[in-house]
Amino acid sequence: MPKDSVGQIGVGVIGYGYWGPNLVRNFHNHPQSKVIAVSDLNPKRLMSVVDYYPNIKTTLNYRDILKSPEIDVVAIATPVSTHYELALQALLANKHVLVEKPIANTSQQVLHLIEEADKRNLILMVDHTFAYTSAVVKMSELVADGHLGSLYYYDSVRVNLGIIQPDVNVLWDLAVHDLAIINTILPDKPLAVSATGVAHIKGSPETSAYMTLFFSGTTIAHIHVSWLAPVKIRQTILGGSDKTIIYNDLEPSEKIKVYDRGITVSENSSTADRYQQLVGYRTGDMWAPKLEPFEALYVEIDHLLNCIDHQQKPKTAGEEGLRAVKILEAACLSMQQKGSPITIH
Amino acid sequence: MPKDSVGQIGVGVIGYGYWGPNLVRNFHNHPQSKVIAVSDLNPKRLMSVVDYYPNIKTTLNYRDILKSPEIDVVAIATPVSTHYELALQALLANKHVLVEKPIANTSQQVLHLIEEADKRNLILMVDHTFAYTSAVVKMSELVADGHLGSLYYYDSVRVNLGIIQPDVNVLWDLAVHDLAIINTILPDKPLAVSATGVAHIKGSPETSAYMTLFFSGTTIAHIHVSWLAPVKIRQTILGGSDKTIIYNDLEPSEKIKVYDRGITVSENSSTADRYQQLVGYRTGDMWAPKLEPFEALYVEIDHLLNCIDHQQKPKTAGEEGLRAVKILEAACLSMQQKGSPITIH
Amino acid sequence: MPKDSVGQIGVGVIGYGYWGPNLVRNFHNHPQSKVIAVSDLNPKRLMSVVDYYPNIKTTLNYRDILKSPEIDVVAIATPVSTHYELALQALLANKHVLVEKPIANTSQQVLHLIEEADKRNLILMVDHTFAYTSAVVKMSELVADGHLGSLYYYDSVRVNLGIIQPDVNVLWDLAVHDLAIINTILPDKPLAVSATGVAHIKGSPETSAYMTLFFSGTTIAHIHVSWLAPVKIRQTILGGSDKTIIYNDLEPSEKIKVYDRGITVSENSSTADRYQQLVGYRTGDMWAPKLEPFEALYVEIDHLLNCIDHQQKPKTAGEEGLRAVKILEAACLSMQQKGSPITIH
Amino acid sequence: MPKDSVGQIGVGVIGYGYWGPNLVRNFHNHPQSKVIAVSDLNPKRLMSVVDYYPNIKTTLNYRDILKSPEIDVVAIATPVSTHYELALQALLANKHVLVEKPIANTSQQVLHLIEEADKRNLILMVDHTFAYTSAVVKMSELVADGHLGSLYYYDSVRVNLGIIQPDVNVLWDLAVHDLAIINTILPDKPLAVSATGVAHIKGSPETSAYMTLFFSGTTIAHIHVSWLAPVKIRQTILGGSDKTIIYNDLEPSEKIKVYDRGITVSENSSTADRYQQLVGYRTGDMWAPKLEPFEALYVEIDHLLNCIDHQQKPKTAGEEGLRAVKILEAACLSMQQKGSPITIH
Repeated sequence: MPKDSVGQIGVGVIGYGYWGPNLVRNFHNHPQSKVIAVSDLNPKRLMSVVDYYPNIKTTLNYRDILKSPEIDVVAIATPVSTHYELALQALLANKHVLVEKPIANTSQQVLHLIEEADKRNLILMVDHTFAYTSAVVKMSELVADGHLGSLYYYDSVRVNLGIIQPDVNVLWDLAVHDLAIINTILPDKPLAVSATGVAHIKGSPETSAYMTLFFSGTTIAHIHVSWLAPVKIRQTILGGSDKTIIYNDLEPSEKIKVYDRGITVSENSSTADRYQQLVGYRTGDMWAPKLEPFEALYVEIDHLLNCIDHQQKPKTAGEEGLRAVKILEAACLSMQQKGSPITIH
Repeated sequence: MPKDSVGQIGVGVIGYGYWGPNLVRNFHNHPQSKVIAVSDLNPKRLMSVVDYYPNIKTTLNYRDILKSPEIDVVAIATPVSTHYELALQALLANKHVLVEKPIANTSQQVLHLIEEADKRNLILMVDHTFAYTSAVVKMSELVADGHLGSLYYYDSVRVNLGIIQPDVNVLWDLAVHDLAIINTILPDKPLAVSATGVAHIKGSPETSAYMTLFFSGTTIAHIHVSWLAPVKIRQTILGGSDKTIIYNDLEPSEKIKVYDRGITVSENSSTADRYQQLVGYRTGDMWAPKLEPFEALYVEIDHLLNCIDHQQKPKTAGEEGLRAVKILEAACLSMQQKGSPITIH
Repeated sequence: MPKDSVGQIGVGVIGYGYWGPNLVRNFHNHPQSKVIAVSDLNPKRLMSVVDYYPNIKTTLNYRDILKSPEIDVVAIATPVSTHYELALQALLANKHVLVEKPIANTSQQVLHLIEEADKRNLILMVDHTFAYTSAVVKMSELVADGHLGSLYYYDSVRVNLGIIQPDVNVLWDLAVHDLAIINTILPDKPLAVSATGVAHIKGSPETSAYMTLFFSGTTIAHIHVSWLAPVKIRQTILGGSDKTIIYNDLEPSEKIKVYDRGITVSENSSTADRYQQLVGYRTGDMWAPKLEPFEALYVEIDHLLNCIDHQQKPKTAGEEGLRAVKILEAACLSMQQKGSPITIH
Repeated sequence: MPKDSVGQIGVGVIGYGYWGPNLVRNFHNHPQSKVIAVSDLNPKRLMSVVDYYPNIKTTLNYRDILKSPEIDVVAIATPVSTHYELALQALLANKHVLVEKPIANTSQQVLHLIEEADKRNLILMVDHTFAYTSAVVKMSELVADGHLGSLYYYDSVRVNLGIIQPDVNVLWDLAVHDLAIINTILPDKPLAVSATGVAHIKGSPETSAYMTLFFSGTTIAHIHVSWLAPVKIRQTILGGSDKTIIYNDLEPSEKIKVYDRGITVSENSSTADRYQQLVGYRTGDMWAPKLEPFEALYVEIDHLLNCIDHQQKPKTAGEEGLRAVKILEAACLSMQQKGSPITIH
């Protein structure tokens, strides 16, 4: 059954490796968009497009995508080092652009992309998929509602036996997800970063890394990422003075657990034996809110299509991508200096 | 039934708070030792000694312990800030000394205690209990046998809703356990440390902290400790080039799991597409070795009594305590400087 | 520190094997009771009483317990086959009696004990410890409040590598715990039972068994017990039309989880495609209520002492023990007939 | 890219509901087969075939499948009550047949299908997918190698919040998976069955059920299935005298764990205190063998295509389907009689 193509937004996808098929599937399934063409340098991958979506054009040359008048949005899912050049050309070709995370290799590049998009009233969106998951949206609401009290810390472990990237280290590959989540959830921006890490495979970039983000006040964030863990762990703790959330992305049905446990401090005392008297320990109920079972990428694509329709800035516009890249740049600098803190501008 | 006291080593315990009862119970149960007296500043706690061990003397004045000619060993389980003074007096009173971890507040103090013990041929032992657990002993053997290949990393999470100590921060309270384990397992000593942390409760010491230890080569260790987590986590990953161990101290029957998973790197290649061709991923069996169900503190006390009998240096002598304290001192300095690396001397 | 013995209830404990030490410790710690004497046939076990409680008398002859005028309550923690004779003699000696579960070998014996206790206005209590746990009390409240809606099922798995009892099968050893819980939680009594099981070790009683209890209406209960499982499992599901509870007794901090998940059936329809239209699936929040961290045996002993003081019938009186024994008798008969249902009288 | 169709086996799929899409995808992906046509009564489902596989024909009338000369194999994934009629017509149309489990409603029907297939030298295969999973194949090998010693028990829990089937009860829907596994793993056939169950939703078939299978000797199997559990559980324990396997199908990477734990019985003794002296408890290592990450349905389809090529009987031929149906028939009869044992002929 051919879709009614009236009013559909035309989509071109550059890159059909790990993430590209997800983009194609979701744009294909969305009633308001239509995938016109897919490009990849590998003909085998294109054959798999043909096999599943015989009506989608395929090409080895991404320029065919940029030239196509049917295409309104270009989605880029290629290696990081090519993001800037491809996104820039797409903007110059007057296409809206959705770029895989991280949006580019340097903040300088991202600033340029933002500028070019703004100049042309085009949407530049970074694919920070986690910002659109039901879990992160729910955490974001709980924080905004003041449910957690003062925010104490964000602590995340994101490790597995992962594919070692030749061109970027593990921070750029995995920590960027946490930066997308932090951008979404935390009201403040990090001021400085201290990072450490090590490259265990000779000649490769860092395979395991740790990053502490300092905020104003006593909020702190810490991210542990690794490609060399024998099991997959995706666990984040978001600690507050009133409640603490444990978010386990691998749990099938209770990803988020809200604990009414913590420390209660009385303020009005001046005795010597201060701690014994003033610090109380609270152990209350635990609650796992129901999460909507939507696929995050579909929600994100729906948001993109809406933003195009209504000429609005998306939640994860180029500026969000820029924030993440600036933090990654500072973290890499700190990592080279074995943890010396670097201010984030 | 009174024990036959011939040949038994007399023990005095100073401090009957959280850990003291465990010391008393284990010395009491060991056939080669006899608990003569217990001191504490709190009369209520002493009443509980009387209730359970009517034959043990109790006193509010620790000097009674030091003076008793029946007592050969003094075990000290008091707040950290008192360790140095009490251990010193015990050594001066010619007693062997077992001190709770951390052994003292400063490396200067520890050096003095070591000196005084050596001068008198007395044993100065620090209660690094984890060094005597079946799990750590087993990991230590696997590392020594070369079972893991090159050591990549030690990564530990030790968090729970814990009692905030008024006088020491969370590194001195919890990370010291990991330092005891690292001392036991890893063949090398850390050269530098970068640490970050934050005090979430006004006026208290740091409640959450992170510490990276740098070794020669590419081995790295990271420790995450917190008193503000809603659930208890005790998970350590010890990664090697051949095998990786996950040690979960809260598992009742499979504390240690050895994974035959990782990355295999071929050395002899010079192509451009290096990573695709040379980095292989290995997913093999998992194996959980049986661990002996001994209580670590009993094993430790048995070791101490043997060392006294045979005039030998214990595995966790003052020098081990010194190593841990030096790392903690450097980590605290780094933490004040938001992660700047500090050399460990 | 000697307790003030005025007004304390004197306790004698017969049997100091697996459970006896827990009874002694809790009666010892309770301010209203005083353990006068402990008997056991094994002198080594009595030595351990002397070692920990030098003020408690010990004897190899349980008759010394029965004769002692200081003793008001006799707690019996011996093998099942001796319960009836010891409990009977204790009642005849005018003592209140607390008997380990199961209360006796046959319902005939239990009826006799109840009769003798009633005749003398003595308390006959069975040690159904689970009835006093915070988890079971909480489930009981949730059921009584109608929180779960109609009760659909009780399903319990209670398996581990357990000590094979020479004189009773695994139903009498483990399923009795579930019968105690069912007695406490469910408003109705089971009408019939079907059980199956097998004795894997030659010459021993059944080592693995399954039991279905039929109630009026559509409530059903199923109990799986085994001494031959490689891991310990203690998981019970209590299903209702509105909410379902999962009770995992091995969870340290969230033993009870209440799920708002299930099936919603609309009643007013007459279409052919009934199921598609009328059966709805509900997936809501999960909630883990805080449980009080009391030791169940202490709560139980406190209840017993109160019942003695106020001449009240305890929650787990002889009649509750009788109910459990009648079900076990019927289950064993069914098991011999490979599952044929047996009415419970 | 069109496949080279020379030598490919033509496939028709009847039914495109829950399981049909998996059949189409795997036949589509297999180089030796080609999906020619799909039929379903629901036009919407057929549109989704068109959308993903524009080269596959679709039809509302399954007779078009039977008539097509290009089709060699008919795969049937329709409601159980239609299996017999559709499979029979496909055989009469001279097609090989793969039928969804359970193969038919009655053993009489299955016997007829077997007869018709044999008469025509056609393959009649039942889709007992679990027989082809890496986990079941591995368990099967471990049992065949004698690794487990004598087989004590098979115990399975297969529950979740499931779709209530209007025409078959939960045994026919879920327990059939365990029967497929038992057929594959256990060397013996069950002799009798006792089952209990209850229909919690008015007018629907049984929603929760329990089934004990009796074998010769002391081997026993028990299956617990339910559509009314709030969480999904897929846990099977396969107990032997030497080793015991726990198979958790929901574990991502360690589905099978082999435990060296159990009871050791010495035979040569005649003392009274038999159990204390002769029954020993063994706690050894645990081992999780690596499993191949193949999709079971692909392996099964590959096996079917091979069997067609070489005119061999498949592992899960009609006879295996018959065995499962006979057990289900006996179990339902037992369930009506509240657990009375029924012989399996």
